[in-house]
Amino acid sequence: MNGAEALLETLTESGVEVCFANPGTSEMQLVAAIDRSQSMRAVLCLFEGVATGAADGYARIAGKPAATLLHLGAGLGNGVANLHNARRARSQIVNIVGDHATYHLQYDAPLTSDIVGIAGPVSDWVHSSISAEGLAVDGAAAVAAAREFPGQIATLIVPADAAWGEAGLPAAPVATPAPGVPEDAAIESARAALASGDAAVLYLGGPALSEEALNQAARIAEATGARLVCETFPARIQRGAGRPLVERLPYFGEAALDALHGVRHMVLAGAPAPVAFFAYPEKPSVLVPEGADCITLAEPREDVLAGLTALADALDAPKEPQPGPLAPLAPTPNGPLDVMGLGAVVAAHLPEDAIVSDEGATAGIALYPMTAGAKRHDWMTLTGGAIGQGLPLAIGAAIAAPDRKVVNLQADGSGLYTVQALWTMAREKLDVVTVLINNSRYAILNIELQRVGAQNPGPKAMSLLDLGNPDMSWTQIAEGFGVPAVKVTTAEEFDKAFADAMAEKGPRLIEAIVP
Amino acid sequence: MNGAEALLETLTESGVEVCFANPGTSEMQLVAAIDRSQSMRAVLCLFEGVATGAADGYARIAGKPAATLLHLGAGLGNGVANLHNARRARSQIVNIVGDHATYHLQYDAPLTSDIVGIAGPVSDWVHSSISAEGLAVDGAAAVAAAREFPGQIATLIVPADAAWGEAGLPAAPVATPAPGVPEDAAIESARAALASGDAAVLYLGGPALSEEALNQAARIAEATGARLVCETFPARIQRGAGRPLVERLPYFGEAALDALHGVRHMVLAGAPAPVAFFAYPEKPSVLVPEGADCITLAEPREDVLAGLTALADALDAPKEPQPGPLAPLAPTPNGPLDVMGLGAVVAAHLPEDAIVSDEGATAGIALYPMTAGAKRHDWMTLTGGAIGQGLPLAIGAAIAAPDRKVVNLQADGSGLYTVQALWTMAREKLDVVTVLINNSRYAILNIELQRVGAQNPGPKAMSLLDLGNPDMSWTQIAEGFGVPAVKVTTAEEFDKAFADAMAEKGPRLIEAIVP
Repeated sequence: MNGAEALLETLTESGVEVCFANPGTSEMQLVAAIDRSQSMRAVLCLFEGVATGAADGYARIAGKPAATLLHLGAGLGNGVANLHNARRARSQIVNIVGDHATYHLQYDAPLTSDIVGIAGPVSDWVHSSISAEGLAVDGAAAVAAAREFPGQIATLIVPADAAWGEAGLPAAPVATPAPGVPEDAAIESARAALASGDAAVLYLGGPALSEEALNQAARIAEATGARLVCETFPARIQRGAGRPLVERLPYFGEAALDALHGVRHMVLAGAPAPVAFFAYPEKPSVLVPEGADCITLAEPREDVLAGLTALADALDAPKEPQPGPLAPLAPTPNGPLDVMGLGAVVAAHLPEDAIVSDEGATAGIALYPMTAGAKRHDWMTLTGGAIGQGLPLAIGAAIAAPDRKVVNLQADGSGLYTVQALWTMAREKLDVVTVLINNSRYAILNIELQRVGAQNPGPKAMSLLDLGNPDMSWTQIAEGFGVPAVKVTTAEEFDKAFADAMAEKGPRLIEAIVP
Repeated sequence: MNGAEALLETLTESGVEVCFANPGTSEMQLVAAIDRSQSMRAVLCLFEGVATGAADGYARIAGKPAATLLHLGAGLGNGVANLHNARRARSQIVNIVGDHATYHLQYDAPLTSDIVGIAGPVSDWVHSSISAEGLAVDGAAAVAAAREFPGQIATLIVPADAAWGEAGLPAAPVATPAPGVPEDAAIESARAALASGDAAVLYLGGPALSEEALNQAARIAEATGARLVCETFPARIQRGAGRPLVERLPYFGEAALDALHGVRHMVLAGAPAPVAFFAYPEKPSVLVPEGADCITLAEPREDVLAGLTALADALDAPKEPQPGPLAPLAPTPNGPLDVMGLGAVVAAHLPEDAIVSDEGATAGIALYPMTAGAKRHDWMTLTGGAIGQGLPLAIGAAIAAPDRKVVNLQADGSGLYTVQALWTMAREKLDVVTVLINNSRYAILNIELQRVGAQNPGPKAMSLLDLGNPDMSWTQIAEGFGVPAVKVTTAEEFDKAFADAMAEKGPRLIEAIVP
């Protein structure tokens, strides 16, 4: 058994079953080992950002790590943006990055690079193996690191000679310690604040947005009148008809502070205190309203479900929350398509237990509230702001949950960064419907240019925010990658195309032309 | 004048005239400053790897730096792979990377990352500005660093408040010191080795592959009988009918050592001693034949033209070399298209002073010798092995030399990494013809899997090397991005399509289906 085989067997025995792969020469022994493994599914991605984003989507839905297989520092570099998002989502990922043979590094061959240096800024754990004998143990440690609650990015660098050298046996799985439970003092502080009668918000993030945890949060809200507000970009929130309604903190700082106006206590449950996504001249960075205090019930890496349950019990809240009020559905739209019409149609047809990968950018801001009354579903957002997440995340979600419909609400500008993902959807016949929202511009930047105080932009500035000239045909691009596609421009056309796509299985792209 | 404006004016006064941009919110002040600048051309790229690869292509042809404009660590991450290639090419690039306002960093907003950490492995110079007042001086220093002979990657990180804060004047350009000239002792050692009558190679790389330097090398060859051999992956070599013929060191180590068999002296001119691209079990890393010595005439950062000229003079070589023998052109091919047929057609129709961006991978290995007898042209190769260079490099070359035809010989697997480049070609109406060599697989990996000793691969391994299932349509993809495209399957069709494309101006893609 060589090092690559020992590593692969260790990974699968540790529960890693899927590898999103984009290998090169230095990973050929690992490819051969995957080939021989009965338990590892290999999914070819044609760009590393697709592989890392898919691993993120898999982790968010499966609650366990997938592996990626990447080609030295340059391949890892291509995966950096979506690893950044995954790290912000606290997803579990095990990156396997091939490297030159240890004895070859000294010669500085063309592909040699500082892989540890590239990995560091997007990894919670990095290790470069030095021998075939140690590779299996390193692999078990990587999986354990990735599983650290709620999740971490673990990057294991595998020199080619460690992969092809003779190794011993696979390594046994390493147990990951359970997360810390919030201390009694934290629960008591939160209880006192919420019981005070002052205006209060229970600010929820991370695993606090699972249905189970939200039910505990709803008990607390029922007992105290506290508002439930979630972080602006949750990794995954379970929502839809019957589940507790949660306000989402607005993106722009002024709107966020407006939404929190008058709040005296913010109880933080699985999320740090909110801060502005970007700084702007003369605008605040911290989004806690003046006069409010922040009380941490559970840090992002603590067991927030236990904390919420204990807090609800301490408040003598009813054991089961009342079912949330049903959010209304908008009427079926007609005429020229716009973002509100998109939202109404999606809300109407989204099937039970669908998974939404939302990279709608400006459109997503409207689509989220429009779908509050849809059937029960999971909603995933762009956690780290590194665009190009939506399509890959949908791949990972579809592989984690093959029986659930995945809908990718995708802005055009963002979708281009990882457009190669379409091919993997076609090859793997994934049940993913991409709604490509084509407004032919970086719409958010048109707003941001003004917000930073740059007035009266000229044609050169505008050309840098514009995706027209020439207009792209996403329909042609998708079909070029093997995904059936249709273009719609009216609400009626979109309604029919989306309903049809929900009724069928397999990858589809609907190019929705919106103003 | 704010910091962004002072920086922009400093860049243009320092000779930087083109910015390959993919900005986000944190770069909006820089976009506004570009808008106001009379002298900076802005080229929108839809993915950062396109921007960095285009800057590389620009530098290789213009011999001076372009700027890139990138969005924080995630955007820079997307540019890492082609910066790696550019650094290996010793190209001149000034990366401008936006960051959060300095006072905002402490809040760890979602897009916050260790930009210096990400930049380090692909930069020769990194600096994070701290104030609007200092930004212009930092910009001038960045340009000077990029110009350090023959070129460096300089990365300047610009916090948003440094961009919008009030600054003083632009900074004056900073002179870059001239490169060191090879010492007399180095020239004498090289002279003695070449005059000894032993079998010798003049091993050329970097600026030694300009026509001017190659003419000096040809003088030396004529005086001594030394063979002229260039590095396997030159950044740019000037070749074609009438120019000195140079052997290119083969890619695989065994073939390289075969080619150098019997050589006693290797005189290194602008290139380090050759090493294998990858290590393989039981195969050598260093590609200097046993019994041969290496004599450094000029280090890669020394003035190799001066060194070659001095060496030729020391050898009393004729002042002008004889014109090289004309390499024969292959006859016009017919029937099913293959790589040799591709090469014959390209060689026949390549116009005078064309620029070739070669990312043909396995096909490129055959296309290079086939085109030795074509009209005079420049040939650029994948210097760092990070695939996804070909299309962006062609963009930069076309912007640096708008009157020259650019031909991008592009393997399908590699082309996918930066496929978004097609749109920039369409928007800027660049005179680039992409020959997309579609063999529906990572052909090189089929070879490499065997070379690392992985025998009898099964279907799972083969699926990771295969780009079929489904087959892609590059014609549809290109047209989706706005580039006119045609698919060819026979030599006759390719001959007509390529000849037509050479006769017209503007972007084209020819999808050549080869076995």
